[in-house]
Amino acid sequence: MQSPAPERNIKLVLEYDGKAFYGFQRQPNHLTVQEVLESALSRLFNRPVKIQAASGRTDTGVHAEGQVVNFRIASPLSCEAVQKALNGILPGAVAVRQASNVPEDFHARFSASGKTYEYRIWNSRVRSPLLADKTCHVTQPLDIAKMRKAAAYLKGRHDFRSFCAEDPSKKGDRNTIRTIRRFTVGSKGSQISIRIEADGFLYRMVRNLAGVLVEAGSGRITPLRVKEILELKDRRQAPKTMPPQGLTLVSVIYSKNGKKRSKRE
Amino acid sequence: MQSPAPERNIKLVLEYDGKAFYGFQRQPNHLTVQEVLESALSRLFNRPVKIQAASGRTDTGVHAEGQVVNFRIASPLSCEAVQKALNGILPGAVAVRQASNVPEDFHARFSASGKTYEYRIWNSRVRSPLLADKTCHVTQPLDIAKMRKAAAYLKGRHDFRSFCAEDPSKKGDRNTIRTIRRFTVGSKGSQISIRIEADGFLYRMVRNLAGVLVEAGSGRITPLRVKEILELKDRRQAPKTMPPQGLTLVSVIYSKNGKKRSKRE
Repeated sequence: MQSPAPERNIKLVLEYDGKAFYGFQRQPNHLTVQEVLESALSRLFNRPVKIQAASGRTDTGVHAEGQVVNFRIASPLSCEAVQKALNGILPGAVAVRQASNVPEDFHARFSASGKTYEYRIWNSRVRSPLLADKTCHVTQPLDIAKMRKAAAYLKGRHDFRSFCAEDPSKKGDRNTIRTIRRFTVGSKGSQISIRIEADGFLYRMVRNLAGVLVEAGSGRITPLRVKEILELKDRRQAPKTMPPQGLTLVSVIYSKNGKKRSKRE
Repeated sequence: MQSPAPERNIKLVLEYDGKAFYGFQRQPNHLTVQEVLESALSRLFNRPVKIQAASGRTDTGVHAEGQVVNFRIASPLSCEAVQKALNGILPGAVAVRQASNVPEDFHARFSASGKTYEYRIWNSRVRSPLLADKTCHVTQPLDIAKMRKAAAYLKGRHDFRSFCAEDPSKKGDRNTIRTIRRFTVGSKGSQISIRIEADGFLYRMVRNLAGVLVEAGSGRITPLRVKEILELKDRRQAPKTMPPQGLTLVSVIYSKNGKKRSKRE
């Protein structure tokens, strides 16, 4: 009799089109990325499989180029075979970009040392049908230099209470201090890309930061006012949350040893 | 009593997502770009309006960043007002990028001196959910140098009978000689872009040329074989037509005087 395959920990890097799903996290009566992925895994391995995600709170409409999940399974299948099989089972709106064996204690969320998000804006008088699902349309001309000036005030280690949900503890964000390591504003034609790398993000933080940069870029507030809003630590002072379709989870960063590091989302 | 507004000739530059339409040209029982545009114009001006398109034979799934149409109307509305009103009426999948007054004899199709198309390929083992509607997925690794070598044989003035529909005259292509002025193959990460500027295109010519370049890039045929296929002037010798979602009509070129120049599509 063959001995059973030992339990492994497998990491998947996912790309998905947020338009097709009601967010990442499983919920009743709505199609989510977690649900289709766990269904595909359960079908592949013929037993229930549960995943852990790096960023489980991703909203409806938010895209991912590099969401990371892990799951445990006792199976002799190679990672390449797992990836290929999943890409055959999964709907067109989600794909496994990479599959790899990781150490037993790797956790997609708690082992992450950081994440990179990008918020994309179509800044033109005329909307773009070809980019409508991947950008937020802002008609008022935005001044990139002012947006960069505002971003410079936000970079670094701060209490980002002004840029989270109204009651952060409801979303599990008891500690609202985060460190933004990189914060860049790029532009190419009518497209503006706000890219933020941080050790972790509060719920809706990127969409709120993008909102305040748009305010600064349009001239409705000064870049210095952005610094004041940050220091006020009051969500009601900040501009409104930007819509989800402009947001993409670009990548999740893990330190080399892949040990659990933080409880931050 | 006010004198009636004189008849004007108005040119529109359109962007649309080909996924949303059953091609450009009006046809019974299917939603087409022509139908939604003529409906919007008729609603705006409160009378029937007919348009002429630069590239009316665009298939289902083919996108446009710069399709051009013109129409005649007696109206005092400014071009800016026409554009704004149309973008309010039109569905999200189509937008008017520019609207301008043009000379009386301007014809979107017959005044064109050339057109630029781009065919986009996602060249990776793994499909891309975020680019699925805008690219064709080719899993086999493609050699860009070989594709460029094949393109060099196709550039210039040739009889492109090998790269049109099986019976070109059925699609109005009696003369199958065209001049390709620019033919470039670019790559960025896993994306490959085949860009072709010509004085005119036969029906499905770009998708057939993209097909033969993919064959050369994959090594299934040599670049020199592409030259032979061109010289055979026989559609049955060429590889199959590439799928429509990779194709985008980038722009239509008009000479400065905008006079009617050609009857070529």
